[in-house]
Amino acid sequence: MTGPRLTPLAQSLPATVPFVGPETQERARGAGFAARLGANENGFGPSPRAIAAMTEAAVEIWKYGDPENHDLRQALARHHGVPAECIVIGEGIDGLLGYLVRLLIGPGDAVVTSDGAYPTFNYHVAGFGGVLHTVPYCGDHEDPVALFAKAAEVGARLVYLANPDNPMGSWHDGAAIRAALDALPPDTLLVLDEAYIECAPQGTQTDLPADDPRLIRFRTFSKAYGMAGARVGYGIAAPELIAAFNKVRNHFGMNRAAQAGALAALQDQDWLAHVQACIATARDCIAAIARDNGLTPLPSATNFVTLDCGADGAFAKAVLDGLVARGIFVRMPFAAPQNRCIRISCAPEPELDLLARHLPDALAEARAAQQG
Amino acid sequence: MTGPRLTPLAQSLPATVPFVGPETQERARGAGFAARLGANENGFGPSPRAIAAMTEAAVEIWKYGDPENHDLRQALARHHGVPAECIVIGEGIDGLLGYLVRLLIGPGDAVVTSDGAYPTFNYHVAGFGGVLHTVPYCGDHEDPVALFAKAAEVGARLVYLANPDNPMGSWHDGAAIRAALDALPPDTLLVLDEAYIECAPQGTQTDLPADDPRLIRFRTFSKAYGMAGARVGYGIAAPELIAAFNKVRNHFGMNRAAQAGALAALQDQDWLAHVQACIATARDCIAAIARDNGLTPLPSATNFVTLDCGADGAFAKAVLDGLVARGIFVRMPFAAPQNRCIRISCAPEPELDLLARHLPDALAEARAAQQG
Repeated sequence: MTGPRLTPLAQSLPATVPFVGPETQERARGAGFAARLGANENGFGPSPRAIAAMTEAAVEIWKYGDPENHDLRQALARHHGVPAECIVIGEGIDGLLGYLVRLLIGPGDAVVTSDGAYPTFNYHVAGFGGVLHTVPYCGDHEDPVALFAKAAEVGARLVYLANPDNPMGSWHDGAAIRAALDALPPDTLLVLDEAYIECAPQGTQTDLPADDPRLIRFRTFSKAYGMAGARVGYGIAAPELIAAFNKVRNHFGMNRAAQAGALAALQDQDWLAHVQACIATARDCIAAIARDNGLTPLPSATNFVTLDCGADGAFAKAVLDGLVARGIFVRMPFAAPQNRCIRISCAPEPELDLLARHLPDALAEARAAQQG
Repeated sequence: MTGPRLTPLAQSLPATVPFVGPETQERARGAGFAARLGANENGFGPSPRAIAAMTEAAVEIWKYGDPENHDLRQALARHHGVPAECIVIGEGIDGLLGYLVRLLIGPGDAVVTSDGAYPTFNYHVAGFGGVLHTVPYCGDHEDPVALFAKAAEVGARLVYLANPDNPMGSWHDGAAIRAALDALPPDTLLVLDEAYIECAPQGTQTDLPADDPRLIRFRTFSKAYGMAGARVGYGIAAPELIAAFNKVRNHFGMNRAAQAGALAALQDQDWLAHVQACIATARDCIAAIARDNGLTPLPSATNFVTLDCGADGAFAKAVLDGLVARGIFVRMPFAAPQNRCIRISCAPEPELDLLARHLPDALAEARAAQQG
């Protein structure tokens, strides 16, 4: 082709997409999903105060958002009891991961993650020419000790750990991560993805000082706060690292209504508590549905439950396909042996009723195919 | 500092911000602005149908947006009469410029723009290690012939041209740009920023095929469509280049309500026509206010009017400071000799009345300081 040449790095990148959205599948099926249980969205929804704030902001959408995200940043600082200089706000954790990788990773730099952990992180690492090294899960848990040992072995600049974990729903005590950090190489930054932390038991947080230079924590309004479509995430780290985001971020990238909505959501902790209770109930409900069908629900500290289908990845994929064909959007882990599972997002009763209604048929179909 | 090391490129970047937001100035002043005329926002606002769509989407904000932006992309394709494969949607033109530069510019690659043109483009070029070469404005117009000649001279990968231009409001006939393109080097991509095109006279568009490999056009919902805070921009280019954005973009980066709002805004062309008329009236009004005060309004094909204050940059800055001190947010060009001007965004009558009321005092103050 004549015309512009991509950089050698860009040329080498595949045009892969980390995730296929449910709308793409709906268009392919020619029908909408009746239950949206695949992306760990939170169908209990955001605080009514957040909805009101976004509605109010809609008439002022002709104004750019505040590029400093001042009000939300200050409120988050108060909420977490940390200096505002330790907080960066961005277009979801996905956007912030992109900025972080750009700041720290150049061609050939080593990065460590778990085999089967968050694909969008891997997408960014590849996108800046980093070299990914993986360690296996230990049981259904990410393995901090092995991750940090691998980081030392390969001289990693970044190591990724989600606590609680996606896609398995498992978690570690914050104390265990704190202890493992002693073995983190001095040149390695821990990317601690806490997207699901509001769904986890007490003690899951690390309780390290915000300015600990060994790690950056990421949080989001997409999960427990029920605002995935708003794209508001934030990072907590030492001021030097937080300030570096200003070198590369899209300063005017935040949606103004999303800024207002996230602030209102943060200020309605009663609603968060209500949603946390709904999530706990939904987890029990999903677990019961799984057991009724002979599947094994894994313990979860998230707003989803991962169900062990008891066979291999092909069988789990058949179960998933059967659910999708019946209008139930679900996803599953990408890597073996986690891909023996399917992953079900917590949702209000009507959606879980649909799961309960259709799972037996999906399973029967998958079992028939397995035997056939 | 111990802890993570930035890449050498990131280390070398200043923590500059392309623009200081009005909210930052309001916090510094300890008072809000009474008129917001500095960021070329569109106070006539978005279509009521867009507001309704965003309001409706607020209750569904728990869902991620469609990562393919399918509905908006298809609607834009129909609107422009181009294949959907020629359109990429992103987090404002700013976000798309970042992706484009990332795809095409590596350390040391040459890029050409006008001295005093869009700083955010320059920010991205620096951010990926590109080397910026500038040519002066010709009168108050960007100079396509000189830009493309400089691109040939330095072997540029990208050359930036805004038509209509910001910050001067000037424009070229599309035919003139088409003619100049014959001299564009074969390895150079023209970045044609058409953020203000809906405010321009017939004939300002280039009317080149969407798949012309020599250029990418950028459009936005931030200006004439009145949705700056939503962050919705798009690019039109050859399918090969458009597809490359999928290698690096934040696939789930679009706000779901913004997607819905932009679609509704596009479908309300009557509202756009109404706003275009309001903008034309406001331009005349700003020009009249300027003349009443002995300033020279420059011709404008945008939703702002650049006022020649008739002296140097220091004088224009004094006028600007006088307006800001009186609660009127305005900005001015960064580079000489354009910085003899201040730039006033079109706005509803009450804001322009405030301008009319306070400009005489701001000017008197600036003149007194000049003589003192």
